[in-house]
Amino acid sequence: MRALIADLPASRIREVADAGLGRSDVLAFWFGESDEITPVPVRDAAVTSIEAGETFYSPNLGLPELRAALAAQVSRLHAPPVPIGPERVAVTSSGVSALMLAQQALVEAGDEVVVVVPVWPNLAAQPAILGARVRRVSLQPGAGGVWSLDLDALLAAVTPATRVLIVNAPNNPTGWTMSRAEQQALLAHCRRTGTWIVADEVYERLHYPQDPPPAGSGEAARLCAPSFLDIAAPDDRLIVIHSFSKSFLMTGWRLGSLIAPEALMPHIAKLIEFNTSCAPVFVQRAGLAALAAAPEAVPALQSRLRLCRDTLVDALQALPRVEVARPDGAMYAFLRIEGEPDSLALARRLVAEHGLGLAPGSAFGPEGEGWLRWCFASRQPQRLLAGVDRLAQALAL
Amino acid sequence: MRALIADLPASRIREVADAGLGRSDVLAFWFGESDEITPVPVRDAAVTSIEAGETFYSPNLGLPELRAALAAQVSRLHAPPVPIGPERVAVTSSGVSALMLAQQALVEAGDEVVVVVPVWPNLAAQPAILGARVRRVSLQPGAGGVWSLDLDALLAAVTPATRVLIVNAPNNPTGWTMSRAEQQALLAHCRRTGTWIVADEVYERLHYPQDPPPAGSGEAARLCAPSFLDIAAPDDRLIVIHSFSKSFLMTGWRLGSLIAPEALMPHIAKLIEFNTSCAPVFVQRAGLAALAAAPEAVPALQSRLRLCRDTLVDALQALPRVEVARPDGAMYAFLRIEGEPDSLALARRLVAEHGLGLAPGSAFGPEGEGWLRWCFASRQPQRLLAGVDRLAQALAL
Repeated sequence: MRALIADLPASRIREVADAGLGRSDVLAFWFGESDEITPVPVRDAAVTSIEAGETFYSPNLGLPELRAALAAQVSRLHAPPVPIGPERVAVTSSGVSALMLAQQALVEAGDEVVVVVPVWPNLAAQPAILGARVRRVSLQPGAGGVWSLDLDALLAAVTPATRVLIVNAPNNPTGWTMSRAEQQALLAHCRRTGTWIVADEVYERLHYPQDPPPAGSGEAARLCAPSFLDIAAPDDRLIVIHSFSKSFLMTGWRLGSLIAPEALMPHIAKLIEFNTSCAPVFVQRAGLAALAAAPEAVPALQSRLRLCRDTLVDALQALPRVEVARPDGAMYAFLRIEGEPDSLALARRLVAEHGLGLAPGSAFGPEGEGWLRWCFASRQPQRLLAGVDRLAQALAL
Repeated sequence: MRALIADLPASRIREVADAGLGRSDVLAFWFGESDEITPVPVRDAAVTSIEAGETFYSPNLGLPELRAALAAQVSRLHAPPVPIGPERVAVTSSGVSALMLAQQALVEAGDEVVVVVPVWPNLAAQPAILGARVRRVSLQPGAGGVWSLDLDALLAAVTPATRVLIVNAPNNPTGWTMSRAEQQALLAHCRRTGTWIVADEVYERLHYPQDPPPAGSGEAARLCAPSFLDIAAPDDRLIVIHSFSKSFLMTGWRLGSLIAPEALMPHIAKLIEFNTSCAPVFVQRAGLAALAAAPEAVPALQSRLRLCRDTLVDALQALPRVEVARPDGAMYAFLRIEGEPDSLALARRLVAEHGLGLAPGSAFGPEGEGWLRWCFASRQPQRLLAGVDRLAQALAL
């Protein structure tokens, strides 16, 4: 097989999780997944479709009604300079599949790709699979464990030789959320260098601003993190990736989407044909139901996750030796513990000796070494506090 | 975007189908899909899983019980030299996804890949996406429209410079089915040249030998086309692709699998993570139900499809100017009509003027030019005869 594929690192999260395999006493916060089941109306829509016999191929780009609903949602959330029509939307077999399609459309072997890190490892692995040279530009941890972008360093790294810039914000694992000013500077720069931006915005709805809009207001129903779609022109070199997994509690359904310039869409359709051909129709029906429920369901989820975040971060900040910031976005606390530089060894010890399942920061690249990721998406904030108790025990030893 | 992707041909089947869009009077036989809905027990298994709340991530390689059931089925059908265990099985998000994973594992930009054609266009497109040089070796049409392999030409084309040989048998679109002797010669040759064989065997259960075993017998329950798995050692450079789509009437579910040497499997798991992460658990439960029903359901489907094949081929052979063979495998009649060299123009005219939807042979490469593909998987053989009537009308003009 290819040496390049053999050398790709396996998931260190999986490595830690395997150490806890078969143990029912582990409190697991390692995966990027809520412990809530997909809501009933969403599941019902899939069941109705299956019972009606919708078991045939879908168009490559997705059901026209789902593409229309996604376009309407994006235009409602973002008020882009020009409304985004269904012709710019592709339905994909997961967000990660949408990201892979974007790389296949843009990246030749030998091309240079810049990735903002630490980040979900898939984002750097995909261009590597296509033979690209991947340059990593790191976010920087500052006071209180807050990570931020060195914009000048990133602008210096992106040159006319850079084919694609990959940015994930709100960021997994750090919670870093890109500001409007940063987006504007990057977009203007990439217009000059001719670089494509692939923006992984799957956490856009999991956003917790300091002054949230009043519950039940129209602003609350539209709350999301700044997006490149707010400012980009229809023909900018920009592909934005969305997923149903996080905002709609649908990780197991493998449904995502992307928005690209219209001229790209016939080619995206071909790539979908050659990768997975289409998403199941009944899964797309579930996606339609999720979008229909979104105006109530997403603000309710945001409130629950904000409570989870505050419960966890307050408790962690009260521990000695722990440094952790209150993230503005996504669903992770990213923490470090004084005197614990080896995150994989620490994570394995926490599982083995204390039944606490966290993801090692090194899973997100060497830039995350010394840190731990804790997913706070949970039905029961009490579960998070039980986890903090176990960490406190571990630190006391 | 990449010029290579822009230049990939779009589906000519889709092009013809688009010409019939919105017309309810078209008899469509253009897609590789039965018109039968997935059987109730399979759909029920998915519904039960969704209702039970199985909406979370699955392991990358699939549910252990599905991997075990697939391994048991393969070992039962093929009696390989060494039984195939679950550790060699990966569950994938469709057969086409399994094929793409195999290419990503094996093919660098610049590598040489040999493909036996005419064939389903995805097989040649996938290595091209990865930057490979694709060499096409054509099956040859002979007397009565029977296509066969020029084994010497294929052996001459596969050299130590050939990284991968891709073979789809039973073949879409020609119905060509590989003989045991051809498999043995190819496997021995590829062992010498160090070439990987990627065998697309998704039609192995759609096989119609001249002397079928008696209905209800154990042989009937195990009937399938010759497979490389019958003869290959566990560590041979061989990846075999399967799909639930064709033998279990599950096209819309996007569920497939692959069997590879055990040493490859950790790397296949990584590639699944980076491409789609996993297949939905409830789709995998449907796959388990399909395997449980297979000993009765597959022979019954084989009988129905044999009747469809004979109904269609008998009627076509009775038409003047039509040349068509009775295929041993898959679910297509591949025909040509005297005086009609342009298959795309003919297919468009048949849709527009006669409401008959067939796939142009040129969709499967230049080697298929002048031919038409007719999918005979239908609940109602009468529907096939109604289609033949339309063709007869067209030929009479």
